[in-house]
Order: sequence, then C-alpha cells, then structure tokens
Amino acid sequence: MKNVVVIGVGLIGGSFALDIKNKFPDVTIYGIDSNKEHLEEAISLGVIDAEISINQLSKVDLVIIAIPVDATLVLLPEVLDNVAGNTIVFDVGSTKEDICLKVKNHPNRRNYLAVHPIAGTEFSGPSAAIKGLFQNKTNIICEVEETAFKLQEKALALFSDLGMRIRYMNPKAHDKHIAYVSHLSHISSFMLGKTVIEKEKNERDIFDMAGSGFESTVRLAKSSPAMWTPIFKQNKTNVIETLDEYINNLKHFKSLMEKDDFQSVYQEMESTNYIKQILNGIK
Amino acid sequence: MKNVVVIGVGLIGGSFALDIKNKFPDVTIYGIDSNKEHLEEAISLGVIDAEISINQLSKVDLVIIAIPVDATLVLLPEVLDNVAGNTIVFDVGSTKEDICLKVKNHPNRRNYLAVHPIAGTEFSGPSAAIKGLFQNKTNIICEVEETAFKLQEKALALFSDLGMRIRYMNPKAHDKHIAYVSHLSHISSFMLGKTVIEKEKNERDIFDMAGSGFESTVRLAKSSPAMWTPIFKQNKTNVIETLDEYINNLKHFKSLMEKDDFQSVYQEMESTNYIKQILNGIK
Repeated sequence: MKNVVVIGVGLIGGSFALDIKNKFPDVTIYGIDSNKEHLEEAISLGVIDAEISINQLSKVDLVIIAIPVDATLVLLPEVLDNVAGNTIVFDVGSTKEDICLKVKNHPNRRNYLAVHPIAGTEFSGPSAAIKGLFQNKTNIICEVEETAFKLQEKALALFSDLGMRIRYMNPKAHDKHIAYVSHLSHISSFMLGKTVIEKEKNERDIFDMAGSGFESTVRLAKSSPAMWTPIFKQNKTNVIETLDEYINNLKHFKSLMEKDDFQSVYQEMESTNYIKQILNGIK
Repeated sequence: MKNVVVIGVGLIGGSFALDIKNKFPDVTIYGIDSNKEHLEEAISLGVIDAEISINQLSKVDLVIIAIPVDATLVLLPEVLDNVAGNTIVFDVGSTKEDICLKVKNHPNRRNYLAVHPIAGTEFSGPSAAIKGLFQNKTNIICEVEETAFKLQEKALALFSDLGMRIRYMNPKAHDKHIAYVSHLSHISSFMLGKTVIEKEKNERDIFDMAGSGFESTVRLAKSSPAMWTPIFKQNKTNVIETLDEYINNLKHFKSLMEKDDFQSVYQEMESTNYIKQILNGIK
C-alpha cells in the first residue's frame, strides 16, 4: 500500500488516516473534502499529507469515503468511474441499502466494499480524529460477495491491522438493526435535549441540577445534523418503525403511571434491567 | 461530630459514610438497613463500623437517610421522634415535596434538612459506594428556613468538607425541575432499552452492532426499580407532564420524517445542538 485517499477528512476519515499512517509510515495519505478549511486543518494537524482531486485516483491503492450518506450516493459512482482495477474503495456510512443499490450495476462494482465501522464520538471535523478509534470495534461488511476477492483480502487485512472484528450482513438487515441500536438512540437523545431546553428557559436551573445521568442520555444530541439528516432520510422506513415502537412504549409507561399501577411500572423497569447483560457483552 | 448513623447503606448512604470516615477518622459510623446482607457487607467492606437500631438515636450527631423515597416517608417521622435537639437529620431523596409536607408539623421538624445531592451512578448496594462521589457536585437544599440555624451550619460545614456546592430551592420547584433533568432521562433510557430488547430477540445482533452511543443512552436503564418506582409515584404529576412533552416532540419529529420535511429535521437537531453549551456548564 503506497497511496491512500480519504474523502471526508472528519472524525471517521481522519481516524482511518491517523491509524494507517501509524501502521504504514511510508504510505502517502491524500485528502478530498468539500470544506477547504477542514482540508487545510487536516494537513496542518498531520492527519493527511496532501490534497488530491477526484480525477487523480487512477494510481491509488485505497479510497475511503467518509462523508454524509447523501453525498456518498453522488460521489461513490464517480469515484468508481475513476479508479483502476486494483483499487479498493469503501465507504463507512451508517446506512447501506441505498448505497449498495446505487452501484449495483456499476461496471466497477467489484472495486467497492460496503462497510460500517461501529465507532465514533459525538464530535466532528479533522480535530475530532482519534488514533486507535477502531481498536476492538465491530466493523459490519455488507454484500461481501459483490467485491472482488483480492480486494476483499486487502481491506480485511487493513481492518485486522486496525484491530477491528468483522461481521457480515446483508444491507437490508443492517439498516433495520442499526435503526434500533443507533439511529433511534440519536433521536431519543435529540428530543430529550429539546424537551428540557424548551422547558427550562432559565438555563441556570439545568446547569445546576443536571447530573451525569442526564449528560449521558443527551450526549448524542451534540451530534452533527449534516451527518444525521441524510441517515434518517435514507433509513426513513426503519427509523419510523422504531420511533412508533418507542413512542408506544413511552405512552404505555405513562398510562401505567396515570392508572397508579406502580407495580407494573416496577416490572417494566425490572425486565429492562436485562440490558445490563447485553451492555456487558459490548465491553 | 462523634457518632453518625446512615440509614440505607447503599450507593449514596455508603458514599457519605466513606467520605465522612475519610475526613473524620475518629467518628463512629453506624448503619441501619432493612437488608441484613447489605448491612453485613457494609461492615465487612469497612463502609460502616457497626449496626444500630432506630430507638438508639438519642446520642448521635447526624442521621443520613438514604433509602427509597417511599420508605423515607415512613421512616423520617420515626427518626425525628427518636433524636435529641442537637441531632441533624437529612434525607437525600430525589423528590422533596411529599417528604417536606409529611414532617411539616412534626415537633422536631427543625432537626430535619431536606437535601438532594445530584450525584450517583446506575449501580446500587454497599459495594457501589465510592469515595469522593460528592466532590464538585451540586447539593440542593429545600426549605432551609425550616431547619434550626445551628443544625443548618453543621450540615453545611459537612457538605463543604465533602466538596459540594449548594443551591437553595423550594420543594415544588425542585420536584418540577428535577423531573426534566433526571426523572425523564431515566424513563427515556428504560423505554429505549425495552424497545430494543423487544425487537432484537436475537441478542447477538445487539451485542455486535451496538456502539458507545447506544451504551450511553441506555446506561440509566440499569438503575434500580426499587429506588425509581417510588420516585415516579411521588413525582407523578411532574413526570407525566415531561413525558407528554417528550412524546409530543418525538411524534413531531416522526411526522416531519413522514412528510419528507428533512430540512425541518435538520433544524430540529441543529437547534438542540445548543445542549453542548449547557453540558459544558455541567463539567
């Protein structure tokens, strides 16, 4: 591996760049970003080595696309138009069905691997990039059979070098499950933040009374709307389904309280304590 | 201060015991707990020194009541019946209106201080007690004027020794605000956990796909139902109000998605990003 291109030099793209540079000091890492300031910042932070443009991809070994999922739909076909046969291209988006469909019939489909690393923070931009972000994280790969075998191998070797564990899944199942364990969490957090902000016009009251529990629950409400809006758009059907179920569960909890059925309120919480075992598994 | 009694030797009571022991090595700390195993565990962990019973409180300097808020309603009057004039008694419950009302006309009302330290974790029991838990945490005191001045002074000196900052509030305002920044967070977290558990019958899928975002959002769903059920019961009206607003915000978000109004979805998130400033204030 000699030349790597990172499209989108933010949290995820930048973290890939840092780890690749760390493992393979001789690799040159080029960046592409619609935000010129981010590009300059990424160079000055040492996240990437230099700028490149999309029609200069013919001699690169690896292209990582780490931009909002709506932009990926536009850019991935263009990237595939420009790469040579031995270039592996992967995206890292939080939705997989639309993107796989988009390039289904592209002549260079076999250069592409659909990837979703379950890693990140609520921050964004090149300064949010972190060394070792992917260590011990799950990396979901979709439709692996559509990618050329030799290029799969290259990508898997990299993921292994970065410490990731691999799970294979079809794009439809990916989008459905991820709606529950990621997309819904973000909406619940944003709406919790909204509810509290609306009510507490005097923010000193929040400031002083909120503890670590509140902080933990609304942490995701710091996330980037530019990244999350297209995710919700592309995964609309699944996300609406999770929202329906979540809202129904909240309404049911409220109705138990209204009926003074606190024995059932207790049982609702007790049975959900089972989440402990699941979370222990994540660690 | 020579003799301190902690009623409820769990996370909060135990953490007070550890800090008091640390600051005042000569103090003897006695424990009362309806759970005999917890009492023995607290002694063997060095959280408390010995057991005591409720009719032996006449010679103690300080009684800390750190039990579920329904049990506090029953026990606080009994404790006040048994203490001498120079004993300060405080509870640490997450609701304040009912408890203040309960002892409003108690002859020893002036021995009691209504306290709510904004500190804790999702764990419980004596082994969950942590040294330094209260350092830099907010401590809300309600109806301070109802407590004897000399006893206020004693309590405030202790809170200061433990590193807490004080905020005064009336019980009604406390219960209303805390419903937003604490009680609602717990329900949103429990119901999120419930929604995901119900859907993902095959838990391996959660295990592998859930990241730190999900973990952060459902952390509070590990909390103790025995502690939280009576809080929701005592703060029913305020909690139902917050739930109504939260559910309405979620429904609105869903309707924007259904209408494909993703510009408004973006704006909802962007305006809630303001939570960053508020959370920076908490740190």
